[in-house]
Amino acid sequence: MSELGNLIYTPQRASGEAITKVESHTPKIHAPDKVSKNTPFKVRVEVGPHPNTVEHSIRWIELYFKEEGRAFNPVFLGRYVFEPVYHEPVVEVTLKLAKSGRLIAESYCNLHGVWESSKDIVVE
Amino acid sequence: MSELGNLIYTPQRASGEAITKVESHTPKIHAPDKVSKNTPFKVRVEVGPHPNTVEHSIRWIELYFKEEGRAFNPVFLGRYVFEPVYHEPVVEVTLKLAKSGRLIAESYCNLHGVWESSKDIVVE
Amino acid sequence: MSELGNLIYTPQRASGEAITKVESHTPKIHAPDKVSKNTPFKVRVEVGPHPNTVEHSIRWIELYFKEEGRAFNPVFLGRYVFEPVYHEPVVEVTLKLAKSGRLIAESYCNLHGVWESSKDIVVE
Amino acid sequence: MSELGNLIYTPQRASGEAITKVESHTPKIHAPDKVSKNTPFKVRVEVGPHPNTVEHSIRWIELYFKEEGRAFNPVFLGRYVFEPVYHEPVVEVTLKLAKSGRLIAESYCNLHGVWESSKDIVVE
Ligand SMILES: [Fe+3]
Ligand SMILES: [Fe+3]
Ligand SMILES: [Fe+3]
Ligand SMILES: [Fe+3]
Repeated sequence: MSELGNLIYTPQRASGEAITKVESHTPKIHAPDKVSKNTPFKVRVEVGPHPNTVEHSIRWIELYFKEEGRAFNPVFLGRYVFEPVYHEPVVEVTLKLAKSGRLIAESYCNLHGVWESSKDIVVE
Repeated sequence: MSELGNLIYTPQRASGEAITKVESHTPKIHAPDKVSKNTPFKVRVEVGPHPNTVEHSIRWIELYFKEEGRAFNPVFLGRYVFEPVYHEPVVEVTLKLAKSGRLIAESYCNLHGVWESSKDIVVE
Repeated sequence: MSELGNLIYTPQRASGEAITKVESHTPKIHAPDKVSKNTPFKVRVEVGPHPNTVEHSIRWIELYFKEEGRAFNPVFLGRYVFEPVYHEPVVEVTLKLAKSGRLIAESYCNLHGVWESSKDIVVE
Repeated sequence: MSELGNLIYTPQRASGEAITKVESHTPKIHAPDKVSKNTPFKVRVEVGPHPNTVEHSIRWIELYFKEEGRAFNPVFLGRYVFEPVYHEPVVEVTLKLAKSGRLIAESYCNLHGVWESSKDIVVE
């Protein structure tokens, strides 16, 4: 397995002290279950409630896509960097898909590591 | 003046061929005129309609804040990177301000440079 | 396991068509085996030879650190974004460690996904 | 003039308190005066000596290029993000140019704003 992959937290994989961090660190993905081909749709990703100070905050969120039938996955979709204090760890973006697949979100807390969630999206 | 500052396009400063690019490249900032102190509010920044291909797209948007009374400005607020084709050049974020100031948005097209707009926000 | 972790390629995990991409996509980490505590040292990460065009290039490299004894890993160390054609996929940076651990590098090709390598560094 | 451009500090434009920050914040560009067309060459950009703590550090450096004869400038070349404490504000990259122009570096301190320097490079 990949080294980074071994370190990424998910609600399923968290154990010990990390269990207490699941609620405040796992990215919540709000996206439709089904979308139309090549038609823009909104995706909202939010983390928290979580502290938002220069010493401790969600520094960034990023999105990847595991596209069905693609020879090499994932596609990197976007990365959103947040300045502590001024910027809440929430972002709404507009995506466009040609094929079904799995949307993967990562969020990074400077004290508590990388947290992940994912959601399947069907293209009709 | 700064070198980068001299190159950044704004609707007011565009001349020659750049005039034809104002509409498709200038970031549009949707934000309230007045907000409450330290209270989250939404800001939406969008660019386009603009081509969205690997050869030509809006690659990123970033936000700065010129805060009243701050010794050194600006504050870097956030940066949003978009993968061509899959990601439209639109982002909605949630900010929180302690003082009034000017929100500054930059967008980058890989063929047509850096484009800017700004909006004053009063903290009450 | 994490979704992203399942998709990250390493020389050990590559199979099928990905085997032909190992040499051109795996980040090569040049770093000392042992360093002095809190003393700056150089790390060079390079990828390739790999095509470098707007349609196909190494778009970015990032570095993480799995620090011994840290409650939550990894630490995000840095991210380096490269414009195609103008920028080769090579970066040399200066790090400073207080504890031993494992340096993890990820590189992203827009056609061939995320590739990883890692290197243990002992702090004396 | 652009809003951001008005805020970017350079050694020439700094006044008042900013004069005391010139030495510690201006990016130093180490690059050849002349290079061969389409041939990789190294550029080193460093900032400091500057504090490197989570409360106060050089958060990132970025590079732009003003290319002679290009209809729209600048080209965004690269962006390098540094985690405080672990990462010094120094980066060495490898560029490749087809035409002469001006390399522009920006560095960002979370307390003292955006600082700039530039260097002309002739392509032979
Ligand atoms: Fe946290
Ligand atoms: Fe354009
Ligand atoms: Fe590739
Ligand atoms: Fe500073």
